[in-house]
Amino acid sequence: MRVGDTHYRSIWFDEDAREVRIIDQRWLPHEFRVVALRARDDFTTAIRDMWVRGAPLIGATAAWGMAMDMRADASDANLERAARELLATRPTAVNLRWAIERMVNLLRPLPPARRWTAAKAEAQVICDEDVAINEAIGENGLQLIEAVAANKPAGEPVNILTHCNAGWLATVDWGTATAPIYKAHEKGIPVHVWVDETRPRNQGAHLTAWEMAAHGIPHHLVVDNAGGHLMQRGEVDMVIVGTDRTTACGDVANKIGTYLKALAAHDNDVPFYVALPSPTIDWTLCDGRDIPIEERGEDEVREVWGRMKDGAITRVTICPDETPAANPAFDVTPARYVTGLITERGVCAASGEGLRELFPERAE
Amino acid sequence: MRVGDTHYRSIWFDEDAREVRIIDQRWLPHEFRVVALRARDDFTTAIRDMWVRGAPLIGATAAWGMAMDMRADASDANLERAARELLATRPTAVNLRWAIERMVNLLRPLPPARRWTAAKAEAQVICDEDVAINEAIGENGLQLIEAVAANKPAGEPVNILTHCNAGWLATVDWGTATAPIYKAHEKGIPVHVWVDETRPRNQGAHLTAWEMAAHGIPHHLVVDNAGGHLMQRGEVDMVIVGTDRTTACGDVANKIGTYLKALAAHDNDVPFYVALPSPTIDWTLCDGRDIPIEERGEDEVREVWGRMKDGAITRVTICPDETPAANPAFDVTPARYVTGLITERGVCAASGEGLRELFPERAE
Repeated sequence: MRVGDTHYRSIWFDEDAREVRIIDQRWLPHEFRVVALRARDDFTTAIRDMWVRGAPLIGATAAWGMAMDMRADASDANLERAARELLATRPTAVNLRWAIERMVNLLRPLPPARRWTAAKAEAQVICDEDVAINEAIGENGLQLIEAVAANKPAGEPVNILTHCNAGWLATVDWGTATAPIYKAHEKGIPVHVWVDETRPRNQGAHLTAWEMAAHGIPHHLVVDNAGGHLMQRGEVDMVIVGTDRTTACGDVANKIGTYLKALAAHDNDVPFYVALPSPTIDWTLCDGRDIPIEERGEDEVREVWGRMKDGAITRVTICPDETPAANPAFDVTPARYVTGLITERGVCAASGEGLRELFPERAE
Repeated sequence: MRVGDTHYRSIWFDEDAREVRIIDQRWLPHEFRVVALRARDDFTTAIRDMWVRGAPLIGATAAWGMAMDMRADASDANLERAARELLATRPTAVNLRWAIERMVNLLRPLPPARRWTAAKAEAQVICDEDVAINEAIGENGLQLIEAVAANKPAGEPVNILTHCNAGWLATVDWGTATAPIYKAHEKGIPVHVWVDETRPRNQGAHLTAWEMAAHGIPHHLVVDNAGGHLMQRGEVDMVIVGTDRTTACGDVANKIGTYLKALAAHDNDVPFYVALPSPTIDWTLCDGRDIPIEERGEDEVREVWGRMKDGAITRVTICPDETPAANPAFDVTPARYVTGLITERGVCAASGEGLRELFPERAE
């Protein structure tokens, strides 16, 4: 999406310089840095040290890493090594494994001389497919925003609350939860976004707020505590969030705190939507309570990262030295609190029935 | 309560030094600083610049300010001036006005020569009354904790979640929401406290966590997003929070985010209690939606205060320069989500009927 007057993706191949470029997201929102990735080590570092994050973007980065390494050395031995080293960067990332396997399956049967060209084309296809999925989510979600706008006085913005960053920085472009917002903005429907800061890692304050500011979408940052009150006062028309994993019965695992917003939406008759590309549906699971929840390090809670008045970037500790912290990273919102799932195929009820209607090939 | 091995109140008169002492709360949890207040300007500064905060402590500090100023100059003119200047420090603080009026009404009829002695005694009484009220809240809430403990395997801690700081630092001693916790701890009932950090001002991380650490009560800091998940997983036995204002029908205004925790408690059958001294009941109001909610400055949201690795204390900005913030300071939890109100007279249902049973003199 836009950064000022320029349209960016989160990853792209620069044909002139023959290198891959990404936005080094570690510095956002304070600095917008584009960096080049050339050798395999550049890619493994970028994934492992979270210069890039978000499942789709991690997959795309790994695919480009495979491709660029084929340009340097297209031998069988190096193909296996590239796959192994890239996979080791973040072993639990499903998209990472999927993208690497897709590249290996394509490249292994090919003679080395043809691997770089084929790999480059495939990495580009992986990126374009992600963009297409998110654009489809955007078009489907747009209809929901239009319906809300039609019930408001002309010119009044549709107020949308979102949690965490399910934006274009987590994908190749458009994002998932944000795609309908960009589509509405493009179509001239006035929108205003309530951006949850999303403690502990503050992806809302760092990334979603930056995306909105860079693209020129009206928004306000709020603390994670504020959403319920805003809904009580009628200042939220709809909620759209992303998801890390949605079960076959419509339970939604997403960034910690999502469940609290869903409860408040339910209590105030505010529609609560979850935007998701269908690969994040876990067809093997029904009850969201069976999803294991990652417990992350306590320093994420005990410390906050930001920029001082003099421009220096630092972490500050916010609690006593003696105070331990607990840090569950995700929570599960039961399907009964989810108004609908926005997928690339359409919008459906958050239920086994709703999902099977959109994905009949999964019904058996 | 205790700071290490020493028992402190949040304000006291030092007989030897003939001065009032307070804990300068601006530096907590990073530095424990006790400062002396002598002249009127010391007191007005301490209240206005929030060296002390919390309605009961502000009232007590104003009373001591009146007293100490009578020692310096007990004339009628100075009595009026002291009242005027102290009242102007935080004009909307109800306890401030109440304490000053109580002092003026006592002192005005007295000859100047008797004013200092009478004022000193009265300030002490105001402090002791606050302690007694909070201790009574503690005893009443203790019974609720004991009931929970009785239903758990012996030795397993009662897990109590609290939001913001309704602790002894906001009162003269004991606190409101924390008083039952200290009483249980004193009685040997194992307790464990989930401390919400309470963005934007982080009173939980700064003050409640510090209180717990200083007194030796097991606790964990959590982000405000985590409570719902903890309740879903059965890791919260009860919630106890304070309140800024409770209506005659049991609706509860408290720090922003309280409502979200009440919703989660309701959804998971976790009892949700509000501890309050009866003067914070607004008998003129039934519907909590009529309580005006203060909108505070956006920098509280855009910035976070803490300590760097080198020990220096600073503020850091967490969002883009272009991003505005909204900052509602309180929300209202409807009475239907409140399991009970813990007052100095006993525990009652959060309803007009429940309150009138405890406070029959208010029934007309």
